[in-house]
Amino acid sequence: MTRAALAIDLGGTELRAAVVEAMGRVAAFAATPTDALGGPQAVIAQMEALIGQVRAETPGASIVGLGIGAPGPLDPDAGVVVDAPTLQGWRDVPLAAILSERLGVQVKLENDANAAALGEWRFGAGQGTQSMVFITVSTGLGGGVIVDGHLLHGRRGLAGEIGHMTISERPERCACGGVGCWEAFASGTALAREAARLVASGDAPEMARLAGGRPVTGRHVAEAAQKGDVPALKLLDDEARWLGIGLTNLLHLYSPERLILGGGVGSLLPLMHETIKQTIRERAMSAFRDVPVVAAALGRNAGLVGAASLVLKGAA
Amino acid sequence: MTRAALAIDLGGTELRAAVVEAMGRVAAFAATPTDALGGPQAVIAQMEALIGQVRAETPGASIVGLGIGAPGPLDPDAGVVVDAPTLQGWRDVPLAAILSERLGVQVKLENDANAAALGEWRFGAGQGTQSMVFITVSTGLGGGVIVDGHLLHGRRGLAGEIGHMTISERPERCACGGVGCWEAFASGTALAREAARLVASGDAPEMARLAGGRPVTGRHVAEAAQKGDVPALKLLDDEARWLGIGLTNLLHLYSPERLILGGGVGSLLPLMHETIKQTIRERAMSAFRDVPVVAAALGRNAGLVGAASLVLKGAA
Repeated sequence: MTRAALAIDLGGTELRAAVVEAMGRVAAFAATPTDALGGPQAVIAQMEALIGQVRAETPGASIVGLGIGAPGPLDPDAGVVVDAPTLQGWRDVPLAAILSERLGVQVKLENDANAAALGEWRFGAGQGTQSMVFITVSTGLGGGVIVDGHLLHGRRGLAGEIGHMTISERPERCACGGVGCWEAFASGTALAREAARLVASGDAPEMARLAGGRPVTGRHVAEAAQKGDVPALKLLDDEARWLGIGLTNLLHLYSPERLILGGGVGSLLPLMHETIKQTIRERAMSAFRDVPVVAAALGRNAGLVGAASLVLKGAA
Repeated sequence: MTRAALAIDLGGTELRAAVVEAMGRVAAFAATPTDALGGPQAVIAQMEALIGQVRAETPGASIVGLGIGAPGPLDPDAGVVVDAPTLQGWRDVPLAAILSERLGVQVKLENDANAAALGEWRFGAGQGTQSMVFITVSTGLGGGVIVDGHLLHGRRGLAGEIGHMTISERPERCACGGVGCWEAFASGTALAREAARLVASGDAPEMARLAGGRPVTGRHVAEAAQKGDVPALKLLDDEARWLGIGLTNLLHLYSPERLILGGGVGSLLPLMHETIKQTIRERAMSAFRDVPVVAAALGRNAGLVGAASLVLKGAA
């Protein structure tokens, strides 16, 4: 029998499940659109169905437990989803206890960004480090932080809200309600906002053509930039500078051995790496300047294998 | 015999030693001006002399080891002072090994801000927490961070350089060489700089009178503010706002249960508390708004008792 864990990644749009072997290999995978309006009981039934599917594909697996990545805020010790803004009716749901009883295995819960950080740490681009920060840049900007061999939790498991550090006095409004947050300048939403401004001004014909009348997105910026479009390259250069400012802060605050960029915008790292490194060289104290900035290795599987690692290796 | 530890606080201007009992009581204390130009051998001889003094005062103490707080960067695992900018000739000094051999006890080394954080955590204003940040605001702005019951070290022990996170795009130059650092806006040096600007403009007659032609300092601001001087109160209000911005970042990044303010400017907390809390309420995500901001309890003894705790309770 191969030792393995069940894993669930509870997203606002997609619910995903897997069987993950001890070395991080995904042995079986299933996904379905999340019944986001159906309430906890409907979604938990979806989870059970998906787990039935992946279990059926892996008869030779000896299951040690279930790890779940879910939207925060949640209480990892109690296994309770406190509030999931993208899922209707999810307030104070004791998800770990419910699934543990129904499935007869131990269940561990972690917020999704932390689960992805654990995945990259144990099986991906962070392997071999004692301290690393995983930064996911897509619609929002979040992450998870490992220092001295521990995933940081802090009070109520809320450490590592890296997208919401103030880095500027510009009154750019953030999705959190605050102003000046890193997320408000460096997320995919911010990149799209700047691209839309440029398109509206008439100075970005290639991006306007790619968008074809629909709202311009980070993907259009990336596509244009990859063709050498100058306005798109300038937008990515600004994006890289904002990323570099925030990453420098993370170096000073957590002193990681490695910074790991994931998410849709993070995947554009090759186009931004030089400006990011240049910004860090300009702004970081000398002892921090040579810390590598690398691409995440696991893509959208990071959260699943990280969740699995909660039971494969014990809680972090 | 009372169980106790030796402690040394190696400062650029003053060298201090103590015998600290297991519950954090300072049983004996001695200090001398640091021979900052004399090189490591001269200063180590001073340390031995001070330790001889405090040992002579505590014949009933059973000494379990020596803890040292020293300027960073240093390597706490190896016990090596890597570079002490305020002390001539201190490059890669294996201080723990040298003193362990001479004194015949175990020796642990920690950077001074971390030692002070440990002191406040174990014996001062941070007692009972699992996560806290100690922030010392004087000439510079530094601190130490405890998360989930561990002092954060990170790569090369450099985690927690909280003074050097970028919080603004204003090109205010920091002592570290960077721009936009929290320290450049909220340290005692920054407060004195703003006070000097105000005095030079003629708009702060009370502070000008207190300074009496010498450079105006944070102390003059405090003294004038305590008398109700409006320009001084306005300066402290601005100081409190800058502190609040950075403290909000610390909440988001580390999720402490308590923020603990020390240092000369930090001791003015009663004059700044309302504006600090107001700034946090305006800027922090809701889950973080009720975290208390409290005054450090141990004053200048924090570093000594924290250093002692390295050997009293084992390394953090």
